[in-house]
Amino acid sequence: MSDRETRHRQAMQKLKSHVDDRVARATEQRGQLLVFTGNGKGKTTAAWGTVTRALGYGYRVGVVQFIKGVWECGERERLAEDPRLEVAIMATGFTWETQNREADTQACRAVWAEAERLLADPEVYLVVLDEITYMLKFGYLDIATVKRALEQRPAEQTVIVTGRNAHRDLLAMADTVTEMQEVRHGFNAGLEARRGIDY
Amino acid sequence: MSDRETRHRQAMQKLKSHVDDRVARATEQRGQLLVFTGNGKGKTTAAWGTVTRALGYGYRVGVVQFIKGVWECGERERLAEDPRLEVAIMATGFTWETQNREADTQACRAVWAEAERLLADPEVYLVVLDEITYMLKFGYLDIATVKRALEQRPAEQTVIVTGRNAHRDLLAMADTVTEMQEVRHGFNAGLEARRGIDY
Repeated sequence: MSDRETRHRQAMQKLKSHVDDRVARATEQRGQLLVFTGNGKGKTTAAWGTVTRALGYGYRVGVVQFIKGVWECGERERLAEDPRLEVAIMATGFTWETQNREADTQACRAVWAEAERLLADPEVYLVVLDEITYMLKFGYLDIATVKRALEQRPAEQTVIVTGRNAHRDLLAMADTVTEMQEVRHGFNAGLEARRGIDY
Repeated sequence: MSDRETRHRQAMQKLKSHVDDRVARATEQRGQLLVFTGNGKGKTTAAWGTVTRALGYGYRVGVVQFIKGVWECGERERLAEDPRLEVAIMATGFTWETQNREADTQACRAVWAEAERLLADPEVYLVVLDEITYMLKFGYLDIATVKRALEQRPAEQTVIVTGRNAHRDLLAMADTVTEMQEVRHGFNAGLEARRGIDY
């Protein structure tokens, strides 16, 4: 065996031992709270990737879209026929388009009622609360209500929260938090949002 | 109108103007190079989310899995029946399991040939090179070969590269780069990888 081959094998053995050790220690199985936050591209996209993944094993999934619900959405198109997927959308769309606090608050509370139903249903394996962070920020929903629903959810249910500026209480509760940081965004260089890629 | 309502409306109007301005300036339409990197959860997941999205509009998609190909994969399960999706996997799986540099290099080159074919096909709207960054890091593929294939790809084709420690040349070429930073990962607190959520 060459020196290079030997070194490579040793390095991989070390990596494998490290990973094996960590896997051996990770034995708790329960639903998780995941937060995808930060100013970069990929938060909602990663949530939909997880939706696709869970559906792939036949689990029931609920998605609640708090902001972009009235937009065209390729993932929803692709998965809409799946009887195990339920999608609830907030009717008003981007709130700065409506600029009507009262109407937005009502629309938010209506779709939150759908979220609460999903969060109470032990048959639902995964619930996505897409862009809910803005609802908390704008004061359309209060954090105590959201925390209570998350705390009381079935033990086997995983929840994904997406959106910028996640409330510190959500971050504190979460099992996994990823900050999607924008290093660069084509949009800022003049690239138009692209069908099938950006929405 | 109350003061609060007025302030809210003004803030939303300002936000809307800002977004409208940026949208008006972003007019270039072409395929993009996206890089999802960093040590946090969500890179591959966001890539599969985009795959689902593109398939939702009927576009053709190719996914090349350089590392986790032999693992169970819920997204692949869910979307496998879609005639517009093609998935190529590297046969050896996690390289530290095999610890055989020669065999891994051959397996990598074999699946790279599939990638090159996809990257040359103008009918393919989106190509995912999942975890290719490790192939460059381990020296199984050289960056010049990968750059050339990316540069010569059809103008309308979007490519997503995922993996930690993306090569600086890939970062330099990319239109959009998101760094998925791990703030917290349940795995480190003893949570076992969960079916339908983590894989």
